[in-house]
Parts: sequence; C-alpha cells; structure tokens
Amino acid sequence: MKIAIAQINVHIGNFAGNLARMRAAVSEAKDQGADIVLLPELATTGYPPRDFLEFKDFVRRADETISELCKDADGIAIVVGSPTVNPVPEGKDLYNSAYFLADGQVLAVQHKTLLPTYDIFDEYRYFEPASAWQVVEYEGKRIALTICEDLWNVGNENPLYKICPMDEMIDQQPDFILNVSASPFSFDHAEGRVHVLRANMERYHIPLFYTNHVGAQTEILFDGGSLVISADGTVYDELPYFQECVRTYELEDVLAVREPKGEQPRDKMTLIHDGLVMGLQNYFGKLGFTKAILGLSGGIDSAVTAVLAARALGEDNVRCILMPSQFSSDHSVNDARELAVNLGTQFDIIPIEEIYQKYNETLEPHFWGRDFDVTEENLQARIRGVLLMAFSNKFGHILLNTSNKSEMAVGYGTLYGDMCGGLSVIGDLYKTEVFELARYMNKDGEVIPENTISKPPSAELRPDQKDSDSLPDYDILDEILFQYIENELGPKEIVALGYDEKLVARILRLVNINEFKRYQTAPVLRVSNKAFGMGRRLPIVAKYLA
Amino acid sequence: MKIAIAQINVHIGNFAGNLARMRAAVSEAKDQGADIVLLPELATTGYPPRDFLEFKDFVRRADETISELCKDADGIAIVVGSPTVNPVPEGKDLYNSAYFLADGQVLAVQHKTLLPTYDIFDEYRYFEPASAWQVVEYEGKRIALTICEDLWNVGNENPLYKICPMDEMIDQQPDFILNVSASPFSFDHAEGRVHVLRANMERYHIPLFYTNHVGAQTEILFDGGSLVISADGTVYDELPYFQECVRTYELEDVLAVREPKGEQPRDKMTLIHDGLVMGLQNYFGKLGFTKAILGLSGGIDSAVTAVLAARALGEDNVRCILMPSQFSSDHSVNDARELAVNLGTQFDIIPIEEIYQKYNETLEPHFWGRDFDVTEENLQARIRGVLLMAFSNKFGHILLNTSNKSEMAVGYGTLYGDMCGGLSVIGDLYKTEVFELARYMNKDGEVIPENTISKPPSAELRPDQKDSDSLPDYDILDEILFQYIENELGPKEIVALGYDEKLVARILRLVNINEFKRYQTAPVLRVSNKAFGMGRRLPIVAKYLA
Repeated sequence: MKIAIAQINVHIGNFAGNLARMRAAVSEAKDQGADIVLLPELATTGYPPRDFLEFKDFVRRADETISELCKDADGIAIVVGSPTVNPVPEGKDLYNSAYFLADGQVLAVQHKTLLPTYDIFDEYRYFEPASAWQVVEYEGKRIALTICEDLWNVGNENPLYKICPMDEMIDQQPDFILNVSASPFSFDHAEGRVHVLRANMERYHIPLFYTNHVGAQTEILFDGGSLVISADGTVYDELPYFQECVRTYELEDVLAVREPKGEQPRDKMTLIHDGLVMGLQNYFGKLGFTKAILGLSGGIDSAVTAVLAARALGEDNVRCILMPSQFSSDHSVNDARELAVNLGTQFDIIPIEEIYQKYNETLEPHFWGRDFDVTEENLQARIRGVLLMAFSNKFGHILLNTSNKSEMAVGYGTLYGDMCGGLSVIGDLYKTEVFELARYMNKDGEVIPENTISKPPSAELRPDQKDSDSLPDYDILDEILFQYIENELGPKEIVALGYDEKLVARILRLVNINEFKRYQTAPVLRVSNKAFGMGRRLPIVAKYLA
Repeated sequence: MKIAIAQINVHIGNFAGNLARMRAAVSEAKDQGADIVLLPELATTGYPPRDFLEFKDFVRRADETISELCKDADGIAIVVGSPTVNPVPEGKDLYNSAYFLADGQVLAVQHKTLLPTYDIFDEYRYFEPASAWQVVEYEGKRIALTICEDLWNVGNENPLYKICPMDEMIDQQPDFILNVSASPFSFDHAEGRVHVLRANMERYHIPLFYTNHVGAQTEILFDGGSLVISADGTVYDELPYFQECVRTYELEDVLAVREPKGEQPRDKMTLIHDGLVMGLQNYFGKLGFTKAILGLSGGIDSAVTAVLAARALGEDNVRCILMPSQFSSDHSVNDARELAVNLGTQFDIIPIEEIYQKYNETLEPHFWGRDFDVTEENLQARIRGVLLMAFSNKFGHILLNTSNKSEMAVGYGTLYGDMCGGLSVIGDLYKTEVFELARYMNKDGEVIPENTISKPPSAELRPDQKDSDSLPDYDILDEILFQYIENELGPKEIVALGYDEKLVARILRLVNINEFKRYQTAPVLRVSNKAFGMGRRLPIVAKYLA
C-alpha cells in the first residue's frame, strides 16, 4: 500500500480555490501511485476559519466541497479535514472531523477529541469533542484516524486533557495512524512536534503518516514539515518547510525503516526568515495585492522589513519612502538610500519639515506657552504615517508596519504614526532578534548597510535622541520581556532570576499600560510561541502591575 | 435568615481596590443585618481577567484577597467568586469558583460547571468544569451554590451543554440557590436573564438570590440588575441597572412572596444611553483619566458622542474641536458650534485647509497627473486625526472615536483618520439607532440641533458628498447588516427575506473585506448581543463572500 502526504496551502473561505488545490494534490498523488492521500485538517475551509464557523452557509459550502471531492476518490482514497454538523442538539453545533473518502463516497468520519483552546486556538468555541473512536478498514488495513492535537496527549500525560483517543483505538489493532493537522509555525515548534509524535510511536508501535498545512492565514504561519514516523520511532521523512509538497511512501518501506531520510535541518534564523517571507507573500497574494510601501528611516527595523518585502514580493513591487525631518541625521538618509539601492527598490525622499511646520503654526495658538514634548515627537511620526497612507491609497500599496516586539511591548511607538500599516512584519521579533536577522541577511554579502546594524538605535524625533535615553539596553530589556511575555512569570519570579526589582516593575508596568496601543496594531506575523495578537488576550482597562 | 445581594463595580487586577470595595459591601450588608452576603463571580479579579489568569502571580493575588476577606466573615457569611487552582495535573489549571466564607475561614468551595465559550466568553480557555456538586449547610439551611451560566441549562435544554448542575444538586434538597454572576449587558439581555432564571424556579421550586457585576471593563458593560426570585417564579426584586447596590432580604418574605417589588422598567434607548454613559465613566475613571476630546463635524455621530461624553464626564472635561475644510458646509460648523454651546463644552475651530494644501504640495510631484480620489478624502480625515491626537498628547485627553456600527461594518471610514480614538463610544449602534438615541437625548428639550438630526448624512470630504451616493439608505443597510452580523444569516437566507440579491452580495462583501479596518479600531462599548471586537472574531485574509 502506498500512502501520499499532501501538505498544501489553502485560503480561508475560498472553497472553489481550495477544491481546485486539493484536486491537484489528489491528482499528483495518483500519478505517484498512491492508494491513499492525506490532506490537512479543515482543508476545505482553511485554518483557522474562526467565527465563519458560526455561519450555516459557510459550513454548507464546506459540505458541498466534500461532496465534490468525493468524485475524485476514484482509484484512490482521500483523507481530508472538514467540519461536520453535530446531529444531536446537545453540545456544540459542529465537529472538527477527518473524512475518509473512497469509491466516490464518504466511507468514514472520525471527529477530533482534543480541542486546543489556548494561545491562538479557540476550538472549543465551535466544536464538540468526539466521544466515539472507530478504526477504518480499507483494503485489508486497519487505520486509526486522528486530528492534530489528538496525538498530543500521549499516554494521557498532557495535563490539559483527560482523555487519549489513541488509547481508545489501540485495542482495535490499527496497522498505522493517519493524522491530519493544522500545526502552526513557531521557530521552536517543529522540534517539539517531532518529539511528541515520536512518543506516540514508542507507546503504540505502529507507523504514523502526518500531514500539516503550509502557508499563512493572516498572522498565523504554517510551516508544513509533515512527517512519516516508523513504528520504532525513527523519523522516516520530514517534508520541507514553507513549501507545498506531495510525496508518496510505500508502507512496507516505512514498516521496514528502509532508507529513512530523517529530519530537516532547523536553524532559527533560517526558519524565521523563510517564514516571514512566506507570510508576506501569502498576505499579499491571498488579498490580491502585489505592491508594498514602507517608510525607510535608516534604522534596522525598517531595513530588515524592506529586505523581507523585496525577497517576498520582488524588488519591483516594493517602494521605500525616506521622510527626513530636521532631527534626522545625515547618516540616516544615506543608510536608507544605500539599502534601497542595494535592494533595487524604488525610493523617494520626502522631507516632512514644511508639513511639520504648518501643523505647529496651526497648533501654536492652542499650545501657547507649552514646551516641546512627546506631542511634537508623535506629530512627526504621524505625518509620516499620513504620507505613507496617501501613497498606499493612491497607488494600491499595502503599507508595511516596521515595529519590533520590544517596542510594541513597552509602547515605544506612535499610534497612527510608525504603528500604522496593514501587516506587522517583524512585530514578533525582539530587537535583539532583529539584529540577529539583519546579520543573517548579510551572511552572503552586505545587503543592509553595516552602519545601520552598528549604530545605536534612535527614533530621531528630537535632537540627539537615543533609544537608550528612555529604555534599558535591549539585551536586558528583551530578557525581562521574554520572561514576562513568553514565560508568564510574575515580578518576584523575574527578580529572582537576577534582575533589578525597580527595573522589572517599570518594564512590566510599561507592558501592561500599553495594551491600548497593541489593541490597535496590525496583525503580527507569528514566529514565536507567544506573539502579540490573537494568542495573547488582555484587557486594556486593568490595574495589574500597572 | 437575611440574605444580602451586593452588586459592585470592581476593577480588573486591582486586588487592593477590589478588596476595599468588597469589604465596604460586606460592612453595609452587616449594617442591614444580613446573615449572608453575595458578591459577584470572580469579584476578586474582576471579569473578564482574560490571559492574566495564566499568570500564577495573578492567581496568587486573588488567593491572598480571599484570605484577607475571610477576616470579614465574622458575624456574616460571604459568598464570593474567585479562581481556584486545580489541584490535579489533568485538565485546565484553574476552576472558576464560588467561595463560601464563614467564621473567618473557607467553609466550602463550589466550582463552575458550565463554562461559556462563545461571543465574548473564553472560559474554557482557562477553566476546568466542575465534576462534583455539594450543597453547603449553614445555620440550618442547605444552600446550592451556582456560578452564572450554571443556571442557563435549565433541565438540560440549552443545546450548548450536556450537564445541568442544579439537576445534580436538587436531590440534596437545598432550601435556596445562591448564584454569583458576571452577566454582561446588552439592551435585550436583562429580559432574557429573567426568563431563564425564572425557568429554574419552575423546575426546582426553591428561591434564588442572584448577584451580578455592575460597571464597565474596557468594552464590556455590566448592568447589575441582580435578582431575587421566589420559589413560584415571581420576581421578588430586581436591583437597579448601572448602579452599585447592597440590598438585604428576609428569606421568609421571599418564601412567602411578601410584597414583591418586581422587575425594573426596560426602555431600549434608556438602557443604551445609561449603559454608554457608565461605559465612558468607567473607561476614564479606571484608567485614571478625566478629560475627553473629540472632533465635532456637525453630523449626528459626533453629536451623540459629545452628549454622552458631557453627561459621563461633565461638560468641563470635554473639549470639542471643529475642523472644517473647503468641503465643509456652513451649516456643519454652525450645527457643531450650537451643540457645543448647548452642552457648555469648550470648543475650538481649527480649519485644516492650509495643512491639507501643504500635503498636496508635498505629494504633487509624486501624484502628478492623478485625479482627486479617496486618497484626498482620507487625507482630510487623517489630518483631523493627527490634530486631535496632538491635543490628546499635549493635554492628556483621551480621544473619543465617533464611528457608528453601520460605517464600521462596511468600511465607510478612514483608518488613522476618523477611526482614531482610544474608545469607540457608539460603534455598536447602527446609524438608525444613532438617530433614535439622538431623538431620545432631545426628549426633554433640544440638545442636539434639529438640523443635525434632519439633514442627510455626509462625510463632507468632497463637494456635495452624501452618504447615500455610495451606500444604500440606512434603513435597508442596517436591516441587512443586522441579519448578517447579529443573526449570522448567509446571503441566500437574507435574500429570502426580501432584499435585492446584488445589494446583499455587495454589502456582505463590504463587511468581509473591511475586517482589516475593524482589526485596528478602538474597543467598542458593547450594547448589542454581537458587537465588533472580542465577541466577533474573523480572519482578515479570507475569501468568503469576498
């Protein structure tokens, strides 16, 4: 028996497009001689469909897609994820299911048992958990169907859950496990995924064929990295990251562990770089846009964003605007220009002084007697935002936001100014990681001017300003932020790690009182396991550590 | 036995403040001679604490608050909601619990069974459901403790749930039910609440004492409206809406249905008006701000927002800025000025033409040969946003957003322009409801100039512009939007109600493709049962009806 894994890139709610994409994958699997082809979780709808699942019309279209796909289950069986309507009134309206299509019809349906409801996941908002488990018999084999998280409670050791679906099925003596997944990328997730899935093999001693989504859905990146694991826990193959792929395996080879290919290499910066490039491509492609615009300041954040944009969209589709003020240093304009030249992107220089002056004249009677303060700093940032949005509106660009995670965390940015943009490209990278990524980008030759990397960061919104005037060194800041944001430690626990108590209190307070800014920020491409956005949900009005 | 209901206004994460507020309520209940006092669900933390619940330090502070509150359980028993740590590793880390404090210690803890995970609710993200139910014996009475949603599956008839906690407890022969709640306001919710709670009495034939939060937590409004219902289903008393209140009842009087007071009157516009005023007061008060600023256009949205702000914060704390352009009609400035005079708020007139001209000069070489289009319209809106934010920064005002639900739905607004603001005051009111509220505000004399209400709506961003140039009449638009947003009907179902197919398709498409704008909008004070924001979660990149 030959089993094909198809890791594909679908588009939420694009039922016709998704059907075409699934059909192409099934066709390719047939060409490869496969008996069964495995498509990802909720492949009909895209993942996560979120509250579209509450629309009966939406679910009906998913059902119609399954009916259409049945026609392709001819000479090949198709395993594919799609929602199903819960036929009984009790419980949630839907199941998150794996369909087994064969001979032109639905042979079996297995519902998902373990419904992730944490971080970016909201599955219990929509789905009822499975309460029955039945292996599927097909061409003399007994097949255990599982959906993503179902394999993440090995031997009931994941404290989140009380049940283990494979424990329920193993007595039915399945020959192998098929798993349809939607397992989002974070730079350290592929390693964890292999670890958890192998633990299943160690417990059940049967092979696993596991398919994942690839592609971006707004802020959520899927890396693919689908897996075949032999009964002894050997990683037989891991599909490439960030690419669609259909690959077929002879079951006997997997059972015999014959010529396993093993895992993909995993370098943190390569993964982040490639993930962000894919995230940009898919955000633009799926929205039907081709062109990006961004403000280039000469600093490292906009430089890294510009490089990613040029690599994702092509240099002809990226327009950089340099908008110096009287507080901009010469090197900033030079560094920015040099980068644009290196990239081959269009760039324009638009000084903002006259507009800034006009605002000040207009406001002067109202602000009479008051000093220059953060108002005038923000004013410059907002003038730049308005100019960039004017280009965006006039020419159909999407404005890219260039904020990093450190400044988003502590509110070191101007709402409606540099926080503008349709997509936050590097908003899940701490400043220290932005530097790391810049150096990675320069590894085969200087793209980002060395001066951009080596000079001290500055917003250049008042004379001789440096980030370090108002923030601690990024090395320390980022460590404290990581302990608070990713590890969710409290102030006492962070101080116990060796940080200054007042500094910790100040930083945690800044994070919490700036929730209102992050609330109005663009979606952030997620590369860590705790990004700002849908995976981190906090009230604006609160007084915890604030 | 005397039972006190305390509906109080707490502040998320403000443990010291919440303890003080609870102590004051307990003290008042003691003064009223109560034997038991009932505080709301998660009263220690505020509701909803959201992902703060993932921080062990946060939960520890809630525990400490309970320990402190035990000291007040002296001569009175206190029933109060707070999270508890799940002692076993399986399942979620926390329970959502009702504590019964008596004689200085914790006498009993009952966990919540039914965990709402829909709309604005995410309880299954944090909490494990109860699996044991035990009535509490106190001073010769047997008491069934329940937490909010626990009473919303009467006789297992709510299709969301499979279990009914009161069915589990009724065999233990409780004398009455105590329920601690966090039941958010929507203009039609109080009526539904009474209906559901009365159904419990019809099934169990024992009285209910039910306490709710009052006050706003960012966008979520709690109306109070706590209830006492006699065993026969008579509403013995309903506490006032939008006010803190401690009120004590003699159990025998409730059992005998002696002089019941019945329900509060419920007028839709009164509820919305009072709810929004409270929402504004609490947003400002809990953040430590006193002053609001907003742009006054002469149109109805900013007029209604200004009236609400003046009533909530006092006319001395509201500053209105009129920012006419060359496209503004004379009546707009006059209407806006008249409103500000009526309200007694400070107002300033700041023409934007010169700044607009300066932007156009700056952009002219780049936009050469291109016609006036939405770019220039947005530019005007954004200049106003920048000016308002400059005032906000300079003087410490919070900028109020004045968008209505209809325009937010179809994207008829400028991101970083009129969509700026820290709080969306009327973003959950359709345009037709904004008119209704304006007329309600004028019921005792003209506050909003009649011309503002009677003239055709216009954004005044190009010559002689009217909303009706690009949108259908609001009567029809709002109906279609309501069917799609509140009722979640699909296009076929809406057309079947008698609307034009092309119009329906166009409007639903506008709603879906403008998700990116709503993503970056301020929190919206929630007055309907489906507001934009945390209760309506949709992907930006999608192709459903788009």
